[in-house]
This record gives sequence, structure tokens and C-alpha cells, in this order.
Amino acid sequence: MNAARRVLAISGGVGGAKLASGLAAVLAPGELLIAVNTGDDFEHLGLTICPDLDTLMYTLSGRADPVRGWGLADETWHCLDSLAVLGGPDWFRLGDRDLATHLRRSELLRAGRTLSEATAELARALGVRHPIVPMSDAPVRTSVDTDRGSFAFQEYFVRERCEPVVRAVRYERAADAGPAPALRAWIDGERPLVVLCPSNPYLSVDPVLAVAGMRELLGSSPVVAVSPIVGGRALKGPAAKMMAELGVSVSAYGVAEHYRGLLRAFVIDREDAAQEPAIAALGMRVLVTDTVMRDAADRERLAREVLRFMAEPAR
Amino acid sequence: MNAARRVLAISGGVGGAKLASGLAAVLAPGELLIAVNTGDDFEHLGLTICPDLDTLMYTLSGRADPVRGWGLADETWHCLDSLAVLGGPDWFRLGDRDLATHLRRSELLRAGRTLSEATAELARALGVRHPIVPMSDAPVRTSVDTDRGSFAFQEYFVRERCEPVVRAVRYERAADAGPAPALRAWIDGERPLVVLCPSNPYLSVDPVLAVAGMRELLGSSPVVAVSPIVGGRALKGPAAKMMAELGVSVSAYGVAEHYRGLLRAFVIDREDAAQEPAIAALGMRVLVTDTVMRDAADRERLAREVLRFMAEPAR
Repeated sequence: MNAARRVLAISGGVGGAKLASGLAAVLAPGELLIAVNTGDDFEHLGLTICPDLDTLMYTLSGRADPVRGWGLADETWHCLDSLAVLGGPDWFRLGDRDLATHLRRSELLRAGRTLSEATAELARALGVRHPIVPMSDAPVRTSVDTDRGSFAFQEYFVRERCEPVVRAVRYERAADAGPAPALRAWIDGERPLVVLCPSNPYLSVDPVLAVAGMRELLGSSPVVAVSPIVGGRALKGPAAKMMAELGVSVSAYGVAEHYRGLLRAFVIDREDAAQEPAIAALGMRVLVTDTVMRDAADRERLAREVLRFMAEPAR
Repeated sequence: MNAARRVLAISGGVGGAKLASGLAAVLAPGELLIAVNTGDDFEHLGLTICPDLDTLMYTLSGRADPVRGWGLADETWHCLDSLAVLGGPDWFRLGDRDLATHLRRSELLRAGRTLSEATAELARALGVRHPIVPMSDAPVRTSVDTDRGSFAFQEYFVRERCEPVVRAVRYERAADAGPAPALRAWIDGERPLVVLCPSNPYLSVDPVLAVAGMRELLGSSPVVAVSPIVGGRALKGPAAKMMAELGVSVSAYGVAEHYRGLLRAFVIDREDAAQEPAIAALGMRVLVTDTVMRDAADRERLAREVLRFMAEPAR
């Protein structure tokens, strides 16, 4: 591979973080910027909680819980258990160690730091080597319109367990938010390769794309996405259920079509190889490979394959 | 003892909580109101922390740690350990379970509850049977002027470990604070017996007395204090060191003199029996007994003795 690479990874939570950590394993800190969805962020118990930023920090610092799929390894729940006794809200699972992240971030924000600055300080303390930035320093809040009414994202996702039928997803205040300064600077320089990690299109990637000016900023860069849908199922989370409720084809093709006009290339799993011609017909190059990341070796291999594929001259 | 008793216990933290729990063991919930110092309260990490209210709630609900002398039994410190890793403040020892109290209280206060209401809700959830009220719903903040400058109470007490030499103690905003409604109502009815529990006079009881209108309110009630100084030493905390630095006699007599004009009676330990005549000469009845409370039986016995002594006709 060529020496001077610049990559912008755009990621939501767990699924995206896997590929982001693969990219971090094969790229130097100066070659990769990871921009993270903050549409899931919310205020809870007076704390500013940024689930996707935390997942990235925990994954890249090797602290993520490998079994549960979210939060920190070796986590305990004593505060939450006591909070339930006291009649406080316990629907959002706040671990004792995780709580420190929210307390510290909230303290930094109250002291006047931007979310970018607070994230950089937390990530540095955790030993993360590659820069992680929020999509925007301004608050953008994803809300979900359903058959049972509108919910703030975490209410829909955690409290309602994604059960209501989704009618629409909105990204509140996205029009007033601009890309985070480090993200803007990263794209404004030599145009990076943009990798949309395998995250939920509606809940993780679209909030990033909804930030005012973001699509224009990404416009002149080559953009590749890795499908979060494999074999008609979401590897994690409610993406497949949502796509069905929104009347979209629950397939890699459906995701490719959703990103049409933005993508130069699309990466699908061997299981979905039959969809290659249809996706190619959307005007994208298609890489067919193993996209399910079970361990660190899978992540690194997929990251290398995506980079190699995008370094090839377009056929 | 007579059936219709009304007692107001005024307490600071650990020492006072022992006698308060003894009184709670021998009095029905309708016979006892416990008013608690809130001069130690502070804002930390965005949380409103009320150490003395918490100590009373934890002690009366049987959840206090019996060895450490503060906080909850079976406590863990995972959040605090992680907070330290993240560069957050770890000088104030926040336990994982204790943290739930602060999170829930802060949430209730943000929702518009008064400190009295929030305390009642927390105490009820913990199973405390007797009413515990803050001295005031308005914030009063104890600050300590020392040879190293002025400190907010918790900075002096915890962060500086009471090392600076005390010149004066101030109760900020006490002049703007009034007694909590339940406390005022309790005194305004049939005048209760007022028991100043064995707490630090300067840091625990004086903040209560400094609340605007409190001395007048207590004025027509019989007031008895139990000395927190035994044998020239404080049973717990910096009372003796502070009294010496303030040029006061470090003795039960010194405490009695400090409360002169307010007290009808004073309770001292057998170890200090020789001081009885001098204290009596201040115009107080004196009960000499065993005042060191090592276990629940000691607490209950001392509570009974104080009540019996105050029920006797003045000699």
C-alpha cells in the first residue's frame, strides 16, 4: 500500500467500532481520523452521555466488554442497583466504571470545553492513540417517530427496546450544527478516503450526514461503505427491523441504494455475492469479501482489504 | 417516661448520628424529628452532596459502614478509581452505592423539589422510619478561614485533611436561610425537648444555630447538649484541634461555655466528672454518665438517660 494515506472513518457504535479498530490497527495515528455519531447522545441524571463516542474509546483502548457487546469489561452495577432502590431511573444501564466517563465528560463540558476537547482529553487518558472526534460540537439529537409516538433515541432504543414500529427518523438541530473543527480540517486538507463503517444507516451514519455542510464536505472525497446488513439480517441492533418498517429492501442492496450518489464503492459479504450486479448497476464498484468481524484478526483483515480495494485504480 | 414526648434532635455527622439513632430506637416516629446540619453540603462533579444528611439516613436505615465510620457498608470504589484514571477529582471519596444517593438527590432538586422533600423521598426509599430534615432548604455553606487561606468546608475537611490552622468559621448565606418548614412546624407546636447531639460545635451545630431565626425558634424550648469532647479529646473529627486553634478550652467545660445561654442542661462523661461544678456554675443542670457509644445498646441507653434526666423536675 502507498505510504501517504489519509482515511476518515465514520462510525456509530459497536459494529462500526469493529472496523474502526481494524483501521486503527493498520494505520498510523496521523493517517486516520475517526468521526463518530453523536445523535444518540442524551442528558440523563444530569450527565451528558455519548454512547457511540464511549464505544469507540472503549474499543480502541481495549477496554470494551467483549461478551456484552457494549460498555466496559469487568463492569459492576452497584450504583445502578442502589439508584433503583432510591426510585431513580434504571432503564439506562449505567455501569460503575462507565459512570466515571460521564461524570468527567460532564465536568469538562461544564468547565467550557467543547465536546471535541472533552473527547480528546478522555481518549488520551484512556490511552487511545488515534484521534476520535464527534461529528459536531453542537448537539444533534436523533428522534424516532413511531406508531406509539415520538421518542428521543435512547428512549426508543433502550427503554422501548426498539419495539415501536418506526415511521421516520429525524435528526434534531442537525441544520444548526457544523462539522467538528478537527473533522473539517481533516477533510479540507488532502482529500481523505472516507469509510462508512458497518453501522446502522438511519441511526448511526445518517445523523453524521445530516450535519449541515457535511455532505458537501465529503462530496469530493472517495467514499466507501461496508454493509451492516449481511444475508438480510443486521449483525447487531435494529437496522433490519427498521428498514422493513420504513419499506426499504432489507439487504445489502437496500443499504447501497440508500447511500446512492454518495458512494464510490460498496463492500458486501460473500453471502450476498448475488447482489453484486444490482449494486454495481447503482454506479458503485463492489468488493465481495468476508465482512463479519469475529475477532481482532478479522477486523484488521477487513480494514486492509477495504484500503487495498480503494487504492486500486477504478476499473 | 411520659407518653406524649416531642423531641428535636440536632445533629451533624457520625457522632451526632449515633445519639440520633439511639433516640430513634426509644422514640416513636411521631415523637422525634431529626434536624441535620447542611453547612457541609457542596456541589461536586455536578452533584449536590449532603454528607450529614446521608450519614443520618445511612445510620438510621442500618446501612452505615460500621468500620470506616462514614459512608455505606459493602461499598465499592470502581467509579472513583476510573475517575482518577480520567484525570477527574478523586479527593472526595465517592463510593459506587453512595453515588446513587447524590445522583438521585440532584435529579430531584433539578426537578424542583426542596431539599426537605428530596430528603424525605430518599429516606423513605431507604426505609428510615423517623423524619430527617435539613436545617434549612436554602443553601448555607460553612467555610473555614485558616493560616493557609479560606476553604470551603469539604476542601478543608477532606482535601486538606483539617491540617491548616483555623482562625474562624463562617456560615455563608445563613442570614438568608430560614429553618426548614417541618422543623419550624415541629418547634411551633408543643415545644419539644431539643437535644444537641455530640457533634462538632463549630462545624456541625453552629451552622444550624446560625440559620436566621433558629436561635429565637429554639429559645423557649428546653435545650440539652451532649458533649462531643471527652477527656480533652474529640471522639471523632477535628473538634479538639479546632478548639485549641480558636483559643477555647479543649474540654467538656469549653463546649458548655460555648453554648452558654442556650442550654438548660449538659451531659458529660464520667471521665470529666470533675468539671461538673464549673459547668453547673454556668447555669446548667449537669448529667454525668457514660457518653461513649460503642454499640447500639450504648446509643439506646444514653438516649434513655438523657430523656429521663430532662423529664425530671429541675432541682
